[in-house]
Amino acid sequence: MVLLRQELGDVLREERQQQRRTLREVSAAARVSLGYLSEVERGQKEASSELLASICGALELPMSIVLSQVSERVAETERTEAGVASLPVPARATGLVSAA
Amino acid sequence: MVLLRQELGDVLREERQQQRRTLREVSAAARVSLGYLSEVERGQKEASSELLASICGALELPMSIVLSQVSERVAETERTEAGVASLPVPARATGLVSAA
Repeated sequence: MVLLRQELGDVLREERQQQRRTLREVSAAARVSLGYLSEVERGQKEASSELLASICGALELPMSIVLSQVSERVAETERTEAGVASLPVPARATGLVSAA
Repeated sequence: MVLLRQELGDVLREERQQQRRTLREVSAAARVSLGYLSEVERGQKEASSELLASICGALELPMSIVLSQVSERVAETERTEAGVASLPVPARATGLVSAA
């Protein structure tokens, strides 16, 4: 299952790193705690809409750009998952199922 | 301030209505409560990543498509807000500020 918070976290972290800014700098600019920003970047916490807007502001990035990047990443993951789902079932796995 | 949950709620509601499905149908298919889905659609509740995936599944829509539509709506709101922000300050408002 594709999870929005993971893809969003990846986009926010990559953007911050490209700007060569630390968690401390961006969390201070966004007025969120360092721990919260770190959890959001690692996809461990859902960012509320208000704090997402604040983080985008701190990164000086329009939220639409962030969401567009997230959408592209999600599309890529969806293609991969669809590919995996359509792989033929290996003979051994089939054997296990019929033995059960 | 552009809020993700509001734009996301609008996109999810419009999609459901285009499919001519009721809140009851989609909430049952997504295995979320009707009240929760209704609040998400009205932008009053943040959808968790898991439940967003579930709602997209119930609507038979890839999440990437939903996010891409949300990104476009957010971009539109950003353009409007930028336009409003750059409007000249009306004379009366200026007067009020200097009187304060």
